[in-house]
Amino acid sequence: MNIKKLIRPNIISLSAYQAKEIPCKVKLDANESPFGFRITQEIIQSIQTNRYPDPEAKSLKKAIAKDLKISPENILQGNGSDELIYYLITVFGGPVLYPVPTFSMYGIIAHALGEKRIAVPLDHVFDLDLNRILLEMRKNKPKLIFLSSPNNPTGNCFSADRMLKIIEAAANRSIVVVDEAYQPFASNRGLIPMLRDYDHIVIMRTLSKIGLAGLRVGFLIAGEEIIREVNKVRLPFNLNSLSQAIALDALRNKALLRRNMQTIISERGRLFRELFRIKGITPYPSEANFILFRVAEPDRVYGNLLKRGVLVRNMKGVVDGCLRVTVGTPGENEAFLKAIRIAVKQ
Amino acid sequence: MNIKKLIRPNIISLSAYQAKEIPCKVKLDANESPFGFRITQEIIQSIQTNRYPDPEAKSLKKAIAKDLKISPENILQGNGSDELIYYLITVFGGPVLYPVPTFSMYGIIAHALGEKRIAVPLDHVFDLDLNRILLEMRKNKPKLIFLSSPNNPTGNCFSADRMLKIIEAAANRSIVVVDEAYQPFASNRGLIPMLRDYDHIVIMRTLSKIGLAGLRVGFLIAGEEIIREVNKVRLPFNLNSLSQAIALDALRNKALLRRNMQTIISERGRLFRELFRIKGITPYPSEANFILFRVAEPDRVYGNLLKRGVLVRNMKGVVDGCLRVTVGTPGENEAFLKAIRIAVKQ
Repeated sequence: MNIKKLIRPNIISLSAYQAKEIPCKVKLDANESPFGFRITQEIIQSIQTNRYPDPEAKSLKKAIAKDLKISPENILQGNGSDELIYYLITVFGGPVLYPVPTFSMYGIIAHALGEKRIAVPLDHVFDLDLNRILLEMRKNKPKLIFLSSPNNPTGNCFSADRMLKIIEAAANRSIVVVDEAYQPFASNRGLIPMLRDYDHIVIMRTLSKIGLAGLRVGFLIAGEEIIREVNKVRLPFNLNSLSQAIALDALRNKALLRRNMQTIISERGRLFRELFRIKGITPYPSEANFILFRVAEPDRVYGNLLKRGVLVRNMKGVVDGCLRVTVGTPGENEAFLKAIRIAVKQ
Repeated sequence: MNIKKLIRPNIISLSAYQAKEIPCKVKLDANESPFGFRITQEIIQSIQTNRYPDPEAKSLKKAIAKDLKISPENILQGNGSDELIYYLITVFGGPVLYPVPTFSMYGIIAHALGEKRIAVPLDHVFDLDLNRILLEMRKNKPKLIFLSSPNNPTGNCFSADRMLKIIEAAANRSIVVVDEAYQPFASNRGLIPMLRDYDHIVIMRTLSKIGLAGLRVGFLIAGEEIIREVNKVRLPFNLNSLSQAIALDALRNKALLRRNMQTIISERGRLFRELFRIKGITPYPSEANFILFRVAEPDRVYGNLLKRGVLVRNMKGVVDGCLRVTVGTPGENEAFLKAIRIAVKQ
């Protein structure tokens, strides 16, 4: 039978997210942390695989709340932030507004859920185009505005005053979702303190960039009313037992987390300076765990790097003329630098 | 500000799924397997927590395909079946038709996604009311029909001829989703062999009932075209690395799985016979890993059981007058039987 005629038109026109695994020796394409966590025998023994997970993730939420000096009632756990984007669009609907280039899942999920998307280009320094966004807000009345700061793939934080103006303009009209996936690498403290004054802000955080990408732990931070409503559409057992237990253990080891973070931040500085010195490469300043850089013939350079076993992200079609490299261990960064110095000349 | 006015009306009227944790000694309320799986040091060491999971779950899908004698292209992995219900309704939309009583998530997720729900009561022996369903199909043209067989919470399989008539009537009109979560405990072989003849059937399976509820592994089985379309709305990293690895290991240990299953099936027989002998209790025949039983004053009996440390499910509002008990280990079942013999008299 003709299955297609039973499928919603917005799904027919949607393409699956491409997350292909490309073999390589040095993997610097996915903004993962180079530092993983040890899974201890105690954790394993604390898990009964046959029992459903704690549907409320009580212990984990308590630890996150303590860490961020907020209340567990302001937190909602997700199977990665991706799932929380799904839930937010399910609860508030569209139109969904976001700047571009940015994290692609805002647009993909809005498309999947059949919501109108409003993609507003960033300005020439990758900052928010305030006038254009305010205009689109008046014209299209978006229910949700997604701002990733630090932004992926550009690496910069948006100007605080522009974000504030958008938040002010959104009052009583839109929910502003600030995706702080990369905030732990930024020099500012993020927008959590603003939740007190603005109850239409939602903040997304994740453990994926600080060593737990394999476990899929993301969370929302917002006022209790928003958390309660989004919780209604959350699948009751969305965060599995092992991810809850390992994330909890990792959060308790703050000293290790901080040390890893410091290494990445200091390596990012070194990587930037070294890239800057290579003729034909223009790196963009970054407050995240990756660096976007402009290079002549990016396809050729990307291929040459891969031939030497180094995988970065080719930003073709997103930021043309650019590649994106994740900050790895000092050894991985050294291997990347060595490879790219040759790759640009080959 | 008034957050409520930004929230979709269908969400406002939705209640969060209640999955409260009730302290107890013998937990027989959630249809979990009493037999868990050992997580070996080899598995743990094979996982890098900092790397994103395999987005395609290739090894796991290969193992499932081999086990079920199908192709990996006919499988889609989910963070539990719950997530796959979400995806199916996102892709095909509503109305969504299902018999009642049944697994509550079909209705909850359809409600969350703003789709019309058509709940058709089962007949007096908990079988499908064929005429009423065919009538509703003509009248409401559902895009999706969910049939859980064996059905939760009634425990029976629906008549094969009634299911077939619904599948025939649905051709070119609706997708029929057969939820075979409890199929491993049934005497029939399930509907996988029918996929060859009917490309509008989707089958759901899960590892939650056979020892891995804590890991959240569900999957869809369907024709390649349906799998491809549903895959478009799947979050790329929906199944975490550890769940993939542990599920793979469990599936490889077929002898243990089969032994556990045999124990549960034989204990179910014993539990049924023993319940049948208790005055005032009428157990319903079951092809699943639980037994629904009718009892006078179920609230009182439920409370008395809990006082003795035994937690079962009170089906009030779903199948009034009934409780549902999961088949546990021989020791747990014995504790339950001992407690209920006293509980009915107290």
